[in-house]
Formats: sequence, C-alpha cells, structure tokens
Amino acid sequence: MGKIAPTGILTSADEVGRPPLKIRFVNLDTGRENIAVISRRSQALRPDVFCGFSRIQIQCGDKLLLATLLITDDESLVGTNELGLATPAFRRMNEPENTLATVSPAPPPKSLDFVRSKIQGDILDAVEIAAIVDDLTNHRYSELEIAAFLVATARLMTASELLALTSSMVDAGTRLHWQKPMIVDKHCIGGIPGNRTSMIVVPIVAAHGLTMPKTSSRAITSPAGTADTMEVLAKVDIDTDHMKRVVDKCGACLIWGGHVNLSPADDILISVERVLGLDTIEQMVASIMSKKIAAGVTHLLVDIPVGSSSKVRTPTEALRLRKLFELVGDHFGIAVEVVTTEGRQPIGHGVGPLLEVHDVMSVLENRPDAPQDLREKSLNLAARLLEYDPALRGGTGYARALELLESGAALRKLQSIIAAQGEPPYAASLGHLQRDIVASKHGIVSNIDCLRINRIAHMAGAPIDKGAGIQIFKKIGEHVSPGDPLYRIFASEASGYDLALRASFEQNGFSIDDRPEPQ
Amino acid sequence: MGKIAPTGILTSADEVGRPPLKIRFVNLDTGRENIAVISRRSQALRPDVFCGFSRIQIQCGDKLLLATLLITDDESLVGTNELGLATPAFRRMNEPENTLATVSPAPPPKSLDFVRSKIQGDILDAVEIAAIVDDLTNHRYSELEIAAFLVATARLMTASELLALTSSMVDAGTRLHWQKPMIVDKHCIGGIPGNRTSMIVVPIVAAHGLTMPKTSSRAITSPAGTADTMEVLAKVDIDTDHMKRVVDKCGACLIWGGHVNLSPADDILISVERVLGLDTIEQMVASIMSKKIAAGVTHLLVDIPVGSSSKVRTPTEALRLRKLFELVGDHFGIAVEVVTTEGRQPIGHGVGPLLEVHDVMSVLENRPDAPQDLREKSLNLAARLLEYDPALRGGTGYARALELLESGAALRKLQSIIAAQGEPPYAASLGHLQRDIVASKHGIVSNIDCLRINRIAHMAGAPIDKGAGIQIFKKIGEHVSPGDPLYRIFASEASGYDLALRASFEQNGFSIDDRPEPQ
Repeated sequence: MGKIAPTGILTSADEVGRPPLKIRFVNLDTGRENIAVISRRSQALRPDVFCGFSRIQIQCGDKLLLATLLITDDESLVGTNELGLATPAFRRMNEPENTLATVSPAPPPKSLDFVRSKIQGDILDAVEIAAIVDDLTNHRYSELEIAAFLVATARLMTASELLALTSSMVDAGTRLHWQKPMIVDKHCIGGIPGNRTSMIVVPIVAAHGLTMPKTSSRAITSPAGTADTMEVLAKVDIDTDHMKRVVDKCGACLIWGGHVNLSPADDILISVERVLGLDTIEQMVASIMSKKIAAGVTHLLVDIPVGSSSKVRTPTEALRLRKLFELVGDHFGIAVEVVTTEGRQPIGHGVGPLLEVHDVMSVLENRPDAPQDLREKSLNLAARLLEYDPALRGGTGYARALELLESGAALRKLQSIIAAQGEPPYAASLGHLQRDIVASKHGIVSNIDCLRINRIAHMAGAPIDKGAGIQIFKKIGEHVSPGDPLYRIFASEASGYDLALRASFEQNGFSIDDRPEPQ
Repeated sequence: MGKIAPTGILTSADEVGRPPLKIRFVNLDTGRENIAVISRRSQALRPDVFCGFSRIQIQCGDKLLLATLLITDDESLVGTNELGLATPAFRRMNEPENTLATVSPAPPPKSLDFVRSKIQGDILDAVEIAAIVDDLTNHRYSELEIAAFLVATARLMTASELLALTSSMVDAGTRLHWQKPMIVDKHCIGGIPGNRTSMIVVPIVAAHGLTMPKTSSRAITSPAGTADTMEVLAKVDIDTDHMKRVVDKCGACLIWGGHVNLSPADDILISVERVLGLDTIEQMVASIMSKKIAAGVTHLLVDIPVGSSSKVRTPTEALRLRKLFELVGDHFGIAVEVVTTEGRQPIGHGVGPLLEVHDVMSVLENRPDAPQDLREKSLNLAARLLEYDPALRGGTGYARALELLESGAALRKLQSIIAAQGEPPYAASLGHLQRDIVASKHGIVSNIDCLRINRIAHMAGAPIDKGAGIQIFKKIGEHVSPGDPLYRIFASEASGYDLALRASFEQNGFSIDDRPEPQ
C-alpha cells in the first residue's frame, strides 16, 4: 500500500439510495419489546455495521418505529428484500405486509444522557424527566435502558423529581374529565392475598350517591388483581366511552385500566420493575398518583397494609410513604387520606379470582359465613370515603356504610354495575385438582407469609385460570392439630398444580408455634 | 358456588409428568441473549403461566440452560411438541435437533437479591459478589438484570468491592500460567483514534528478550481494536494452545482474547455497558485488571490518554484512576505503572485497520513519512517496559528501544510473530469510495474531537470492513485554508459511506480557530 496524499475532493457516491424493504410479519410474541429481523444477506443495509448500534429506526411513510434488530440466515423466515417484524412491532407499525419501509441505525434516545447523569448522582429537572418519560412512552427505550432508569432513580429521588415524574407520566396519557365536583377513589398498595375490598367499597359508596370510577390493574405476579376478580362477574376490558356510560348510569364502575390509557409510561416501568423485583416507594407513589390524577380523582383514600410479609413492613416505612402521598396530593390539588391497616395475613378466605368472588358475594349478600375481616375492613374504608360527603353528618360514615350493606343497596348497586359493564368473557369454574395442605404439629398459627401464599396461588394458575388459587381455613391465633387442613390448593391444569404443590411442600407459608401457652 | 369446607387430604395428581419437547433450531442471531420459542398451543407447559417469570430453565440430559421465552402461533416455525432455540442458545446447548428437553419456569438468579441490596445502598461482601459473577458468567442474567447490576455499582463501589469483583472475574475464566519469572504487558484504556502502539511496542520489547503475550479486544463501537488491526497481517483468532506455541517461539503474540476465555464475565458486562454508554472507572479497572491477572501478567504498564474528548478528561480523573490500578495491582501482587499521555487528538494518520497498519509498518520500517507522534509514543512506552529488565542499566530503556527499532530487529520480530500466528483470514483492500473533508475557513486547528472521528470512521465500516476508515491530514496547531483537506473518508459499501459522509457534513470533528494570531 502506497502513501496516501491529499487529492482534493473526490465524489464517488454522494447520495446513496438505500433500497426499501417489504414488511413481513414474524409470528413471535416478544412482550413489550419491538423486534425486527433482517436477512444476513440483506442488500438494504450491512448488518455487521449495525453491531455497534443497539437499535434500528424503521420508517414507513411518516411512521417511525424503533426496534432491536435480530439477524437470520433463514430466507424462508425473512428474505433478503424483506423486513421481519415480530408481533408487537408489527401491531404497533399497523401496516399491511409488503408495505415498503426503510431502515437506518437508530441513535440511542437522547434522554439517556439524563439517565446517565442521574447514575452519576445528579438531580434531574422537570424538562429532563419529561424527555425521559416521552421516550419511554414512545417505546424508544429498550428493556435494559428502562432498567437503568429504574435503578438510577431507586436510591434517591428528590421531592421535585418525584413531582416532575408524576406530572410527566400524567401528561403522557389520556386524562379523564368528569362533570362532577367530587370524584372519590380508594387504592390499596397491594401485597395482601384475598384483599378484595374494592368490590364491596365501590358499590357501598356509589349506592350512597358518590361518584367512584374505579380502574384497576390485572395481577402480574400476584394471584389476582381487582380487574381479574371482577372479570369473573362482568366484562372489565372496556374503553373510555363505555366506562363513561357505566359511570353515568351507576355512579361507579369496576374496570381494567388497560384500555383507558391512563399513565401508559407506568405500565412500561412496572413491567421491568416486576422482573427486577424492585419496588421503591417513590416509584410506587409516582405510579399510583399518576394514574389517579389522570383519572380525574379529587378525593383519594390510600390503604397501606403493614405486616412482616407485606410490601410495607413497619409503621416507620408506612409513615414515609404517607408523607410522599400527601406531598404529591397537595401539589396536584387532590385530597389524599392515608390509612394503615392490618397486613400480617390474608384477608378473607379465598385467594384467586373465583374464590375471592365467593368471599365478596357472601359479604354483599350478608351471609353468616361471610369473612368478618373482609367485611369489617370494607365497611371501614367505605365509611372514610362517605365522610367526604359534605351532606353527611361527621362520624356517621360507618353507620351509613353498614346501612347500605345490610339493606342490600350495595348488592343491587354491584348488580347494576355488572349489567352496565356487560357479560364476562367466559364462565369460570373452580379448579378440579384440589389438595389440602395440613398442619404437621399441634400449636397456634403464629404467622402467615403473604408472599408465599400469593406465590403458591399464582403457581396454581391464578389469575389466568380464574378457578385456581387457595382457600384459607386457618388464621393467625387459631389452634391447629396435626392433619388439620390449613388451606386447599385449587388448579385446573396439571403443570401448575404440580408446581404449586411442590412449592407448598417445600414451604407452606404457615408458622405454627408449639410452645406451651401460658393459660 | 357453595361453601368450601375442609375435607382432609385430597390427591388428584401428585406427580405430574411433563412431556418433553424436541429441540429445534430457530435461525435467529440474538446476540448474547439465550432465546427459546414455544408454540402458544404447547402441551408441555402453559405459556400464560409463564408471564410472571422472566426466564425458563431448559433441561436436556444433565445440561441446564436458562433462556428468555418467546411465544409463537406459527407451527411451521415451532410445533406444539417442539422447543425452538435461537442461534446462541442452540449453540450453547450443543445438542442435535430432536433431542428431548424439558422446560420449567426458572426462578430469577438468587444473586439478584444482592443486586437489590446494592441498589438500596448496601456494601456487598466477597461471597455475594462471587455469586453475582458466577450467575453472570453462566448466562443466568438477562440483559436488563445485567443493566441493573451495572447501574447499582456505577455510583459507588468500595475498594473491597472492587477487589472482590476483580478476583471473582478472574476465577470465572481461564488462568494462564507461564514458566517465566516476568510477564510484561501494556494496556491503553482506549478512546484515541489510531493509537496503535501495541503493534510497535510488543515487537520491540520481545526483540529485547522480555515475554509479552498480548491479548487484545476487537472494537465494538470504535473503528478498530488492536486485534482488528493485527488481523490485517495475521490470524488473531487463535486458542490457548496455539497462543502458547507462538509465545514459546517468539516471546510474544498479538492475538484476539476472545478464544482464550480470560475473564468471560467482563465480556458480558461490557456488552451491556456499551449499550448504556456507561464507563465508570471502578468497572473499567475491574475489567482490565481481571483480564491481566488471568493472563498471568506480572508487570503492567497502563496508558491513560488525557484530553477533552478522551475517556479521561482531566489530570484529576487520571489520578483517581491511577490509584485504583495501583490498589488492585498491589493486592494481587502485580507491578503496575500508570502513565498519562497526550489524549487531545488522534495518534498517527490512519483510523481503521488497514490505514493503521500502514502507519505501524512505516514506523517499523523507519520510513521518513512515518507518523512521528506514533513513533515517539511507542518508543517511550517500550522504554518503560524495558526498564523492568533487571539486566538493563537504569535510564537506558529509551536508547535500547530506539536501537531495536532502528536496527530492524523490531520489524523482524513482528514478522516472526506474524509467521507463527498464521495467515490472515482474507486480504484487505482500501475502500474505493473516498472523499476528502475540507476546511471551510482560514485558521489554526484548535481541537479534534476524538469521539467524532471514531464515530465517523466506524460508520464508514471500520473495523468490519478492514479498508474503511479515515486518513488524517491535519493535526492540532496546523494552519489551514478553505478547501484544504482535513481528512479523507474511505469506505467500500455505499450505505456506510453515506452514513459517514452525512455525519461528517453535520459535524466534522475539527475546530478551526480563525482569530488573528499574536505574532
């Protein structure tokens, strides 16, 4: 090779046409991640060059989509002039196969610079946080970039960062407006098996005349969210228009939030938090409050169960969490009241959608076998919400809640909500694979591990299998003898049943204290 | 649904056989990530149940592999009784198609608990760090979990954590043993375009008689690593046995570290660091030192270029980095010397493998057009290494290095290393698409942005395309007039050429100061 001397301007190919590719559907469910596939022999780009880029940018008309690129040598899967899009990317692009698209390397989202400065210990301002939330919402972050943001903000989020995050998350989605002066809601931070109070509180409060448009989540790692349990009785998978009709008619609804697009960034963050098992309180507060502000809530009651296997383990943690809820509520002009409740053990008997419906209906029907803990907790929460009504005399909330429950008004309200939301998608039946888990010794139940009970019920198939889960027979303080059933596992399918049984044999979640009791 | 009363022990299906699946190859290059694909209608497991688990565990005989699960409805891709394995997973499983395998949900790696405590601010002990590195090395972490570990340790890593991380990373891979009292090496932390001193330093030092078994990396985001450039001249992709034969014969080698399995956890961490653009100094030191300790190095010279667009921007940062190298070196009994060097601009003329080879050979051949900066820097580094030789009189290292270079001994040594390593995989030729980037005004070159030059050369196709890159004509302090070529872009393929030109037109990386100079 000779010496290379300057020779002035050479022009070989100034503007290079990059041939477009034909979109092709690749039937692969890749979760939230946009995945594109090209042939290793593709003429439109040199895949090797893309090694250094984490993502590609796909342009199709005026639509732009970011995706992670995989490469194939199998031309029956994706040909050299094709661009394969896996299921979520194909759905988001929303163009027919064979539509032409061009592909170029995508620079990482600009807001990653702010994530990096947060990692180095900087405090982010509102503009920086808004840029991050915008990129998140528009699927410009890969999962590992989302993880970096979550971890970077996990150790320290200032009050101003928390407010900016909440505000940006609200702005990123739909915001509901109601023609009412007062919209009440309650939210439990979760973690307690069987804690299905909303399905009792909402009909009581709505029967009184307050407006309570409740959107709930589906369970992901737990055996049931309110939406999963309500779905045994009614359609919950409804959009904003249908939601408004239900609330106009009944003063309340009990639906899944997934189609209402409230704080969509939250759903994205939660999907990664779950994999990492991260649950930091600032992120929790931003998550919950962004959904409630977007839903147009004016008065919010937050239920924080405290117990050794609950999300919040000590009164000190509960107090810190309360302050954060109050901070955000005050900033956004929402009346927030925080109550701490018993979180040492499951509420009610059933854990899993169908089993929980059984508990809820037994309370609303005032049946003698109704679980008293679920009944009392629901009445107390409803009483707090009723006290928001200026027309109600102070201190009479509980009596009013009890009246609405005992008279059957709450039951009739739930039935009208069910009618307005529509039929459930399918009839659920209780799992036919059943086995009792029994005590191995004499003693007193001293502890029930909520995490373990949730995990076993989840393994049994709840909430996807509505009839799977756990029925609890013993609570803390009860005497047991060897062979006494502690709970029963229900499942419909062998694989989940097997998993749940094995987990239960290894560690059934009950602690039994066999020391002689002082009489 | 009636009330459910305890009924004692029911046994429906205690031990549930889960039918095995037949392994099938899915031609998808998924980078480092293990990806498995099953049919949505698979009988062997219920995919829905797996939503809550991030990963599955595949058992095949006594082999165990963790993978992320994707789901397909396309039974021509993966049938209901099949288990699809994408390219890296199939290669790692290393079993023929149709081998039977069973699949079960994989719990997240246990060591993630330690990552979570690090996120919360805890200091990890050596056992905890070893568990993390073990899980990393065995591909039990998904990319987002790796990101969480990197971010959690980015802000604070104590000295004891750094030592434990380095030690665990060494233990996780191969450790080389040499029958010599002294093994020397040099390492540059990188970032400076064209800085190809190793290919000059290694032959000088080996010609003197010291042993220098150099393993290098391939470039990922930069336009060339030493291994990429050396590959123009010789085979670099060689295993430990071949490496030992080369070193026995020549006293040195210049190979790619990829097949020698030194600190494999490092390669995994770096792949995610790169995507996140994270480059924290503790992680850098653990990365470099783990490779050097594993390689059996006893005397190490570390080159830290300092400049505004270099990895290390200030003398203060360089000092902090030096202390960390010394800490780790002292702990592991390695003599470490750290030098800071000029890092304001590229070294030599060429940026990209073939263009860099041109520079290296012109220095070794003592040609008058050889870049003086590359020659001087190489002589100085070689001099430092030669001073490790107890037989050499103190202060004569530079003279000895110069003698070995000027006599042609270093050139002959490189030629013997090339002969021992073997022929390069293919002959490289200079990119035929060429264009000069010119100055737009009179003035003096006041700054050259190393990051930008690297990025443009990378876009042009380097290092995959050996003949792509940049030839630099002007350096800091030189006078330029409008139209004077600053550098020339070389590329072989239109798409990369186009990208590089566009990037260069947007921002060419050169700052020209046109203020009147005080004479």
